[in-house]
Amino acid sequence: MCELLGMSANVPTDICFSFTGLMQRGGRTGPHRDGWGIAFYEGRGCRVFHDPRPSADSEIAALIHRYPIKSGIVVSHIRKATHGKVCLENTHPFVRELWGRMWTFAHNGKLANARRLPLGAFRPVGDTDSERAFCFMLGRIQARFPRPPAKPEPLWRLIAELCAELRAMGTFNLLLSDSRHLYAHCTTHLCWLTRRAPFGRAQLIDAEMLVDFERETTPNDIVTVIATRPLTADEPWHVMQPGELQIFIDGLPQTGPAAEAHT
Amino acid sequence: MCELLGMSANVPTDICFSFTGLMQRGGRTGPHRDGWGIAFYEGRGCRVFHDPRPSADSEIAALIHRYPIKSGIVVSHIRKATHGKVCLENTHPFVRELWGRMWTFAHNGKLANARRLPLGAFRPVGDTDSERAFCFMLGRIQARFPRPPAKPEPLWRLIAELCAELRAMGTFNLLLSDSRHLYAHCTTHLCWLTRRAPFGRAQLIDAEMLVDFERETTPNDIVTVIATRPLTADEPWHVMQPGELQIFIDGLPQTGPAAEAHT
Repeated sequence: MCELLGMSANVPTDICFSFTGLMQRGGRTGPHRDGWGIAFYEGRGCRVFHDPRPSADSEIAALIHRYPIKSGIVVSHIRKATHGKVCLENTHPFVRELWGRMWTFAHNGKLANARRLPLGAFRPVGDTDSERAFCFMLGRIQARFPRPPAKPEPLWRLIAELCAELRAMGTFNLLLSDSRHLYAHCTTHLCWLTRRAPFGRAQLIDAEMLVDFERETTPNDIVTVIATRPLTADEPWHVMQPGELQIFIDGLPQTGPAAEAHT
Repeated sequence: MCELLGMSANVPTDICFSFTGLMQRGGRTGPHRDGWGIAFYEGRGCRVFHDPRPSADSEIAALIHRYPIKSGIVVSHIRKATHGKVCLENTHPFVRELWGRMWTFAHNGKLANARRLPLGAFRPVGDTDSERAFCFMLGRIQARFPRPPAKPEPLWRLIAELCAELRAMGTFNLLLSDSRHLYAHCTTHLCWLTRRAPFGRAQLIDAEMLVDFERETTPNDIVTVIATRPLTADEPWHVMQPGELQIFIDGLPQTGPAAEAHT
């Protein structure tokens, strides 16, 4: 199993604090020694850092930790290999372009018979069940919507359907982004927390680090963090339910067709 | 105009020495202040670092400089914006997946009427002529070869044809890789150099740095470096001719149909 970390915010925000907690789980407080990666969306652009080495002693993780990249959406993953060898091409998040948007995908869990998932034009580079599931999803999205739908709800419903198909094959905790939305799907472990005014303080569980968000933010900031397990000890995390899909835009969870689609 | 740097090697090799020279041109010895990027192929995997800031004072460039990533193919670019604003999505190298291979593309030059280039399923994220040319090329490659051709020569000929079409639209100095080959196409400035036994020493032009390759290599190593302008003062660089396409595999330039195709 692996650990996921995501962020959705209404202003460019750095994720250094949460990332510091997550990285400890990559070989220090957790067993996830088989590489890690993080995608930062900055406007339409997306940059991704991949490292097949353990995050707890990665030079690149140290850079991310001290170099605050301000981003609207973050998708991150640290890996405990269950399927596929430890190498760069098996390191999440996976990235593909569709409709002139960069899509990123990180998965925690294991899917039985993923090799049988039918593919369209998107093809895996590595040999994980996760990357194949991503290519399957994008192939289906491209087949249904050769161009982006004018309103997002039909896309949200399709993503909910695809998540339902995949969770029938095993464990499918997912973070997915198309540069506008952040999709979080839970089958076993995923939780989220929205920070907004009035801001308080938070203490990391995995490292000796305390942040006073009042000092780091402006009153209009809205920032949601999503993680496999709570990263802080003293904040009210929402624990997601099996089969639940949440869609975040600009830091806020959406309600409506997609939220209904999973029920 | 921009500066290109590429590498093809028969053993995983770090590019720290050449990269050190290139990075100086990003704001110190050259005017290319509008971002930079570098793609490293490690087996089938590919990791790309993008930074819209000038390379000469980039934290990420400093990391690449001191953290030797060993790679078989490298594609790098520093940018002087001529087309499209300075932002992450306009930062080369651009990346797409086709046939389960990661393709990377870096371009130096300017193409007239690039907006008229017809596209298939690959779509630009940013607004540069370069990314559109890349999407055009991949769309044509995918249309001709929905699956990878059994032998590479038909693909090489198609890439030579596409380069000829694009150079008719302006300046098209190109580095392109599909994770197996490194393609270098010249219309104005591109040169290359193969280092192999017996190895000598080299002095960077852009920085006070001397390397004795005899101490850094084994007798079987073959490493080709490709750059817009020579990076070292005391080595015999091959200056490419307008319209010339070179294809490198495992550090060696190939001859045959592709090399003939451009004549």
